[in-house]
Amino acid sequence: MSIDQTVAEITRLVGGQAEGDAGLRLSGIAGLSDAGPQDLSYLDLAHQKYLAAAAATKAGCVILPAAARGAACPAPARIYVENPQRAVRLVLEALAARQPRPAAGVHPQAVIHPEARLGAGTSVGPFSVVERGAEIADGAVIGPQCYVGAGARIGRATRLYPQVTVREGCVVGERCILHPGVVIGADGYGFDTDRRTGTHHKVPQLGNVVLGDDVEIGASSTVDRGKLPRDSTVIGAGTKIDNLVQIGHNCRIGRGCLLVAQVGIAGSTTVGDFVVLGGQVGIAGHLRIGDGAQVGAQSGIMADVEPRQILFGSPARPHREAFKLQAVYAKLPEMHAAIRDIRRKLGLGSEEPGRKSEA
Amino acid sequence: MSIDQTVAEITRLVGGQAEGDAGLRLSGIAGLSDAGPQDLSYLDLAHQKYLAAAAATKAGCVILPAAARGAACPAPARIYVENPQRAVRLVLEALAARQPRPAAGVHPQAVIHPEARLGAGTSVGPFSVVERGAEIADGAVIGPQCYVGAGARIGRATRLYPQVTVREGCVVGERCILHPGVVIGADGYGFDTDRRTGTHHKVPQLGNVVLGDDVEIGASSTVDRGKLPRDSTVIGAGTKIDNLVQIGHNCRIGRGCLLVAQVGIAGSTTVGDFVVLGGQVGIAGHLRIGDGAQVGAQSGIMADVEPRQILFGSPARPHREAFKLQAVYAKLPEMHAAIRDIRRKLGLGSEEPGRKSEA
Amino acid sequence: MSIDQTVAEITRLVGGQAEGDAGLRLSGIAGLSDAGPQDLSYLDLAHQKYLAAAAATKAGCVILPAAARGAACPAPARIYVENPQRAVRLVLEALAARQPRPAAGVHPQAVIHPEARLGAGTSVGPFSVVERGAEIADGAVIGPQCYVGAGARIGRATRLYPQVTVREGCVVGERCILHPGVVIGADGYGFDTDRRTGTHHKVPQLGNVVLGDDVEIGASSTVDRGKLPRDSTVIGAGTKIDNLVQIGHNCRIGRGCLLVAQVGIAGSTTVGDFVVLGGQVGIAGHLRIGDGAQVGAQSGIMADVEPRQILFGSPARPHREAFKLQAVYAKLPEMHAAIRDIRRKLGLGSEEPGRKSEA
Repeated sequence: MSIDQTVAEITRLVGGQAEGDAGLRLSGIAGLSDAGPQDLSYLDLAHQKYLAAAAATKAGCVILPAAARGAACPAPARIYVENPQRAVRLVLEALAARQPRPAAGVHPQAVIHPEARLGAGTSVGPFSVVERGAEIADGAVIGPQCYVGAGARIGRATRLYPQVTVREGCVVGERCILHPGVVIGADGYGFDTDRRTGTHHKVPQLGNVVLGDDVEIGASSTVDRGKLPRDSTVIGAGTKIDNLVQIGHNCRIGRGCLLVAQVGIAGSTTVGDFVVLGGQVGIAGHLRIGDGAQVGAQSGIMADVEPRQILFGSPARPHREAFKLQAVYAKLPEMHAAIRDIRRKLGLGSEEPGRKSEA
Repeated sequence: MSIDQTVAEITRLVGGQAEGDAGLRLSGIAGLSDAGPQDLSYLDLAHQKYLAAAAATKAGCVILPAAARGAACPAPARIYVENPQRAVRLVLEALAARQPRPAAGVHPQAVIHPEARLGAGTSVGPFSVVERGAEIADGAVIGPQCYVGAGARIGRATRLYPQVTVREGCVVGERCILHPGVVIGADGYGFDTDRRTGTHHKVPQLGNVVLGDDVEIGASSTVDRGKLPRDSTVIGAGTKIDNLVQIGHNCRIGRGCLLVAQVGIAGSTTVGDFVVLGGQVGIAGHLRIGDGAQVGAQSGIMADVEPRQILFGSPARPHREAFKLQAVYAKLPEMHAAIRDIRRKLGLGSEEPGRKSEA
Repeated sequence: MSIDQTVAEITRLVGGQAEGDAGLRLSGIAGLSDAGPQDLSYLDLAHQKYLAAAAATKAGCVILPAAARGAACPAPARIYVENPQRAVRLVLEALAARQPRPAAGVHPQAVIHPEARLGAGTSVGPFSVVERGAEIADGAVIGPQCYVGAGARIGRATRLYPQVTVREGCVVGERCILHPGVVIGADGYGFDTDRRTGTHHKVPQLGNVVLGDDVEIGASSTVDRGKLPRDSTVIGAGTKIDNLVQIGHNCRIGRGCLLVAQVGIAGSTTVGDFVVLGGQVGIAGHLRIGDGAQVGAQSGIMADVEPRQILFGSPARPHREAFKLQAVYAKLPEMHAAIRDIRRKLGLGSEEPGRKSEA
């Protein structure tokens, strides 16, 4: 995948200001340490440790943040932009646009129910199954080996990678991306337990899942269907979910959220808009997480969260408090020794109150 | 999915006592806040916050626990029952029974080995593979794109949703439900590491998995096969496993357990009957978890657990102790300050013993 | 699966020293408690609790570590070896070698692009898809329902179990094993967020994944592709990954590592050689984990780790320190009471400094 553009052309593409050899023709894009004289590279200040790499790079051209005008960078050409991440994204989008797309049409080895409806320019790969009443909107791509259940709806220009399951009645928005192994609309985890015998009777799960537009869901993540016939588990527009994430039945996740890998959210929890959940975060059921809340990796949420709170820990606390507690926690042995010394000094013995012979 | 029954008919179905307009015909079922005048709803006292919703509902009929006779509820009809969860389950079962079932028969695009045995009324979906010697018992449904390995046995009336893998020799009980992406019988994680070179030699995994009757396993969960030829990883009858759960080789999980999403159990651990493991719980290998134990979400178990213990935390402790410790943990900064004050008062300096210049 | 060998033959196979009835013919292999008079069993000293089982076993022959010459064991034959795990592995390998292997050849219901290249003796199962330019090297087995993307390369003698996805351009080494549901090369989790609107623009992920030789990846684990066209997410030779593990884009995992189930590693983190990560460990992005580091289950890594460090906890600390802190943590209530007593004794009141009326 060759860029094959000059520094001047890329500067126009990303809306920046060029310095140095604007006529230099670039063929590739690579990290600061990997790039050679034909390559574009970039400095992302989000990780300060990459400043030294910028000073030592062999790249032909480096995209730099305007804020780093003073940073050392020996590249023969430099492009200054407000936001290097955005600039790199635009370059990669231009490259991605040249990749082959699956051809439109239904593979002869797909099984499409005669009462399913396929829009213009849709693509259905080999060994995929589209059941009765399902709708695949214009330009949607159903990869190989996918399952689209009865009455399910796949929005315009949405892409299902191989081996995705969308069960009956579920609704996927426009321009969504579902990565391999995603399961949309499996039964929620609901049982009615007989207290006498302990038998767990399955509660039928008759709702569906509704994904808004521009939702992306990572490989092997699972979103369970709602319980009652009119219940939907909802993922709001623009929310991006990483791999191996679990969303329980009847959850409502807002718009523009980021759920990092291996997050788990139990049933009936409502998550506001633009919430960020770090990797492996767990959230109990029937809670309400406010707009803009941010939760650090591996945290456990067991109570409602106010909007814009930043939480950390298991159980989670406001992050400043959590960090403070962690800092004091590290002093526990010294605190324990200090108490023993004080007690000795005061003639109270070296044992804490309430402790038994196990010392 | 319309209910289309009167309050009187539903009262009979759920075995309750009706109050108000017993002739009211209901068309749907919905949560207290969503329900309209044609809808059935219900109050589940497990979540007290729903009491206010009961007082404000627009539902035509509400199922209430007998214990909530005094609760405010303006619905024109009310049905009192011992257990609303059970009542709702019965209503949903009646609705679910009207859903279309996959037709019996083998799809022409399934690959069934001539030496596989299919019982009466079985259904095998398109692109599924059933290998030599596998047995699919009467009434079992093998969804599309499933894999049933050589000699595997699928019990009567069991259902495999799309894209389930059951590897060779594994045994699935009767009336089990395996959701999309489930993997039964992958190799256990076993290596013989050469201490000199660090090379990990794979130990062949020659056992199988045995699922009891009425086991349900959530989407993309994995249960590894036993190590020795006669070893089974066992999931007891009636145990319900949520999504993205991992069960290591040679584990024995008892009857009637509940394993919530993203639980992981390392190899050779034995879990008793009616054990409840909250979401993201991890259990180390070669342990014994007693009958009826309950473990809070995100807890980590590193030692045997007595029957009926209730544990919490990582590492897990008896829940009362864990909550107590959490409560005192929150006071750490004040404890730290108190020790400093006491030391100052006693002329011991403000430093704890054993601390170096890093202050 | 019958062993059908004498004690003498097995002694030769495992390179040990026999005691007792060397002519005894064995038919099976089983754990100490399960084995009968025709069975081989073994004592693995890694778990001391099995010593009692050795003394009570009914096995015909037991493999014992040379270090356990004194251990009680009533079996009519005993084989002493340096390393029982290795001996059992050799016996199981001999058994596994007798299992039927998938026949070479392409199933008529697989879809192979005419420009894909298949080596000698390869096997491709039903309903698998191999795209344009993909290469399947000699002796590789592509199970049923797998997807091998355009230009992907599968190494010699590698095995893909059913329902594995290897996306375009990814490279799998020789003798690798990918278990059912594995996803190699899904898009990394990368977004360029507009700070004004909160919109997350997808950053195309144009790199690939490179798995070294002898890599094994457990069921439903996911390894994301690199971001830039020349970026690879790399898993080093001989590394063994358990089920439901997530490896973020641009990670570089070294050789000979062990990643236990449900581990998650965020993007751009480098893990050295022979690192061991316990179950459910989480590692933040852009970190460097030194060679030979070991991290206890459920730990969370938020900073670089030196070679050979042994860490535990979330956030992780050197394990001795972590265990010490855990031990003192358990004394928190007594420490709290002691401080209160001291303050009372010194006439300071029973309240800690800085605490308000909430007592």
